[in-house]
Amino acid sequence: MSMSSEEMISTCLEHTMFSWAASGTVSPLPIARAQGVYLYTPEGQKILDFNSQLMSVNVGHSHPKIVEAIKQAADGLIYVYPGAATEARARLSKRLAQLCPGDIDCFFFTLGGAESNENAIKAARLYTGRPKILSSYRSYHGATNACMQLTGDPRRIHNEPGGPGYVHVMPPWPYDYSFGADEDQITANHLRYLDEVIMYEGPDQIAAMFVETVVGTNGILPPPRGWMQGLRALLDKHGILLVCDEVMCGWGRTGKLFAVEHYGVVPDILTMAKGLTSSTVPLGAMGVRRAIADHFREHVFWGGLTYNAHAFACSIALAAVDVLVDEGMVDNAAKLEPVMRSEMDRLRDKHPSVRGGRCIGLFGMIDIQRNAAGDSIAPYDGTHPAMQRLAAFFRDEGLFTFVRWGSFMCNPPLCITEAQLREGFEIIDRGLDITDEAFEG
Amino acid sequence: MSMSSEEMISTCLEHTMFSWAASGTVSPLPIARAQGVYLYTPEGQKILDFNSQLMSVNVGHSHPKIVEAIKQAADGLIYVYPGAATEARARLSKRLAQLCPGDIDCFFFTLGGAESNENAIKAARLYTGRPKILSSYRSYHGATNACMQLTGDPRRIHNEPGGPGYVHVMPPWPYDYSFGADEDQITANHLRYLDEVIMYEGPDQIAAMFVETVVGTNGILPPPRGWMQGLRALLDKHGILLVCDEVMCGWGRTGKLFAVEHYGVVPDILTMAKGLTSSTVPLGAMGVRRAIADHFREHVFWGGLTYNAHAFACSIALAAVDVLVDEGMVDNAAKLEPVMRSEMDRLRDKHPSVRGGRCIGLFGMIDIQRNAAGDSIAPYDGTHPAMQRLAAFFRDEGLFTFVRWGSFMCNPPLCITEAQLREGFEIIDRGLDITDEAFEG
Ligand SMILES: Cc1ncc(COP(=O)(O)O)c(C=O)c1O
Ligand SMILES: Cc1ncc(COP(=O)(O)O)c(C=O)c1O
Repeated sequence: MSMSSEEMISTCLEHTMFSWAASGTVSPLPIARAQGVYLYTPEGQKILDFNSQLMSVNVGHSHPKIVEAIKQAADGLIYVYPGAATEARARLSKRLAQLCPGDIDCFFFTLGGAESNENAIKAARLYTGRPKILSSYRSYHGATNACMQLTGDPRRIHNEPGGPGYVHVMPPWPYDYSFGADEDQITANHLRYLDEVIMYEGPDQIAAMFVETVVGTNGILPPPRGWMQGLRALLDKHGILLVCDEVMCGWGRTGKLFAVEHYGVVPDILTMAKGLTSSTVPLGAMGVRRAIADHFREHVFWGGLTYNAHAFACSIALAAVDVLVDEGMVDNAAKLEPVMRSEMDRLRDKHPSVRGGRCIGLFGMIDIQRNAAGDSIAPYDGTHPAMQRLAAFFRDEGLFTFVRWGSFMCNPPLCITEAQLREGFEIIDRGLDITDEAFEG
Repeated sequence: MSMSSEEMISTCLEHTMFSWAASGTVSPLPIARAQGVYLYTPEGQKILDFNSQLMSVNVGHSHPKIVEAIKQAADGLIYVYPGAATEARARLSKRLAQLCPGDIDCFFFTLGGAESNENAIKAARLYTGRPKILSSYRSYHGATNACMQLTGDPRRIHNEPGGPGYVHVMPPWPYDYSFGADEDQITANHLRYLDEVIMYEGPDQIAAMFVETVVGTNGILPPPRGWMQGLRALLDKHGILLVCDEVMCGWGRTGKLFAVEHYGVVPDILTMAKGLTSSTVPLGAMGVRRAIADHFREHVFWGGLTYNAHAFACSIALAAVDVLVDEGMVDNAAKLEPVMRSEMDRLRDKHPSVRGGRCIGLFGMIDIQRNAAGDSIAPYDGTHPAMQRLAAFFRDEGLFTFVRWGSFMCNPPLCITEAQLREGFEIIDRGLDITDEAFEG
């Protein structure tokens, strides 16, 4: 392997399509290798990965134990059809049963987040016999047609019409008003709002409500105090399943292995992908509670895919989970949360354009404002020249992150050290002079 | 790795869900390793793989060159986000551009067949600006919600309601009547039928028609003579895109690299998965013709997935494609087609319960009849005790294949030798005594 950056870029532009983009407007970042928290271009530029790629490389790039596991797995059983029993499938599912909250102890393996949610829709409908699904605005659940319908971000609009029965509710933190004056009031009012929506939609028509336990792409938004517990109780009252999508917030990202652990609730279905293998090999999963697993012992589960429980992928997931857990990376995320928060506060105090930052574990975002009133520098689904300049600055200075609308992400791999974390914020600090210039006062 | 069969089976049954089944009725086949055309249980039973698992392990199991490629790729770049350019992505896409028919030279990489078709639906709708999609009864296009709507087999029924705009047409070979007396008439009448359906549905409302170039799971049915060419012309007349789903029939299965090559037509979109990596690592792709690729240089493609163009998977696909092409396996499939056909004819002449077999390349199926009138031993979506006994016999005798309704599959890996192929038919020959007993005369 020895292509130059130019060759990589021109060939990829000529022969591949790019996601969520017109490829004529894309200028792909050429990457030759990656190690730990760093990416390297073919010409040797070193780039700090401040987004774990798509918030997915949780243990860092090319962890030696995972590289070794790949080589070993190559000599073992690679693939058999999903009706077979394999050691990798047995061991991974047993391990997940130990690690997942409550009695979530049975798994359907897929390839990514979207397929996990597709199967969660199936499972919820088949288990309850009800057709409708609730989800929130300001959410992302994947790009397949049904997942797009669950989603509450602009990408859904371009994927309509979808099927019937998808109902969106306002999340507890709406865009620029509030359900209440303090967190407890917000929670209480939002749950009343939700109960009323459920009444109008018909409780016995609703199979499940999907939530990102902590909203990811659409804002890194942990729910207000008491909300998850209240939601669990509300849905229980109506026999509606709670599906927690932890594709992004699971596997240590928030400083707990699963984000639901912050709130002490057990969802009926938990979906995951990304951190499950730290992106080394595609694998996703839907975990279900015992009652649902038992249901599908007697009733057909009308879902499947060629690569369900792919043996090689299950082996690598086992190694990736071991690295994450055994090397204390979840604790590292929890330990570094205050460091990230103090860096964010420092930047807010120093830069007038910083409205503020928030994080839970190493799941963080900084919002940029255009005035002292706190208005976002960019409208919903829009941009601002200063944000584009900021993105270019990060890229030139060797910081990889996602800049979107009026915000940018701070989601490094969970193996990051305090020094590396501060290295990232040092680049950000310099970059924010650009948005300060656009601040209107 | 050293679990016993029992431990594998009991753990998988306890902690995993099984596809298209009530897990309480499943008895999983325990597999410890696989090599070439053989699978092995932990206790050492050797099983001839007569279905390439899910018609997907085209080059055979654990091919040494692919095992080596996996080890090498483990030391290289494993994963970066889909906005990056990588050498693996560049090289694979360039290679596919060389190998795919006509001017299909731009690729969107997914993880499996369903996601490739999901993205083909998006691409077709976005490119044409039209909402409806035509597809056929007796087809399978994947298990995600939209692919289930494309699908024309019983699995769709359990995944409804889906979205609006999916229209199903009868395939050229209906279940037990005919569109005509000979192949030319069948083709002509079916195309007239199709044109009339298009008229009723509104030609300018239809984005695409999806077909399996050769229908797979639902019968191994190559289209009648002239049909693909006629279909291409008919769709062109109405500006409707032709999407050929070659997830199963592509990558050498039919004795040509892609099945469309038998008919000399170039679809607008070609979807693939399975044989692209021979199942070693999950990867699928949607290939599009130049005009569509150019469209998405200027217009946003509203699709994406975390593992789009996964670098490690692209590397392994390159190796798998090389093995398939360089080792002459496509030619081997073509060369063994007459052997398979003669074995099928021999069995038909010998066993009264054999209605007949058909194959194209190493893509074959045998139908079992219950009487001399040729009625299937099992109804559509049903079974018969003799078919269940036949399945058990194959399993006991060490032949892996799929027995479904009144038929069973003959789809060995394309690396199979003539002797191994005859070995499989020898087991089948003995098994057919079971169905002969159920033959009513
Ligand atoms: C919360 C959430 N759910 C689902 C998905 C979809 O996962 P995938 O891209 O693997 O299909 C994502 C991807 O970013 C996500 O963040
Ligand atoms: C023709 C065809 N299309 C699509 C699919 C779906 O592929 P996957 O199971 O990889 O999603 C299949 C799977 O068998 C298939 O045979």
